[in-house]
Amino acid sequence: MPRVEKVDLKPVGYVRRASKQEDVKDRMLTCQIVIRRELAKALDGLEDFSHLFVIFYMHEVKGEDARKLKVHPRGKLALPLVGVFATRSAFRPNPIGLTVVELLERSGNVLLVKGLDAFDGTPVLDLKPVDDRDRVTRPRVPEWLKKLHAVK
Amino acid sequence: MPRVEKVDLKPVGYVRRASKQEDVKDRMLTCQIVIRRELAKALDGLEDFSHLFVIFYMHEVKGEDARKLKVHPRGKLALPLVGVFATRSAFRPNPIGLTVVELLERSGNVLLVKGLDAFDGTPVLDLKPVDDRDRVTRPRVPEWLKKLHAVK
Repeated sequence: MPRVEKVDLKPVGYVRRASKQEDVKDRMLTCQIVIRRELAKALDGLEDFSHLFVIFYMHEVKGEDARKLKVHPRGKLALPLVGVFATRSAFRPNPIGLTVVELLERSGNVLLVKGLDAFDGTPVLDLKPVDDRDRVTRPRVPEWLKKLHAVK
Repeated sequence: MPRVEKVDLKPVGYVRRASKQEDVKDRMLTCQIVIRRELAKALDGLEDFSHLFVIFYMHEVKGEDARKLKVHPRGKLALPLVGVFATRSAFRPNPIGLTVVELLERSGNVLLVKGLDAFDGTPVLDLKPVDDRDRVTRPRVPEWLKKLHAVK
């Protein structure tokens, strides 16, 4: 089988926020995920899970920054320059976002979630339930990340 | 800003397994992720993390099954029919896989990982470090999933 060189996806839905001015980094905020109507049935049973992974496409990341291979985590120059795959930076070869959110409510093709750090209009690529299998009890993380969490 | 109706991605690398006959569901097996050479620097610092999320494209999922909206989890007819977004089924509108793996070694543009349930040649879309923020201590899950884990 030849190598797959290109992957074409169609969003399954979009993020809808109460206001375009919201601070999307505020994990206490809620927003909606509006799934395409014809896919609504694919959400059946999702309401029995408390948490979801949302995989989304950060469509607003463009230009020179989008091609960076190394970054200072969260732009903090005091922290070491590391590869983008070692960070959650939005600047990465494929601008895919992955966030665990709390599912508060489902109504038809609309989900109400808490903690999604995505702008209004962001295309959503997939949703997956969070399961005990995803738990890593004590992941080893670098020293710079511990510092970053300590100062926050 | 108009809606994004189409998302075009280029794989950042590919899965390489010792044999095409391996049981990819066996989480004790290791395999390699070979990142495109020109992106190797984007891996710098990843070796300080014990676990990664691998986001991949299940390119072998095709045909009628790929358009299912509801499935019996893992094909078990005794379990309820639920929406594909409430499962980790490979049959979903965008056949994107998400797995937490253990990172055993990095050598240049090649990662050795344990627990990746992806076939040889699978295109990899993104890698992200697993961090304490991703931990959900006790996710609520449906009764059918508890049954599935109990019989396993």
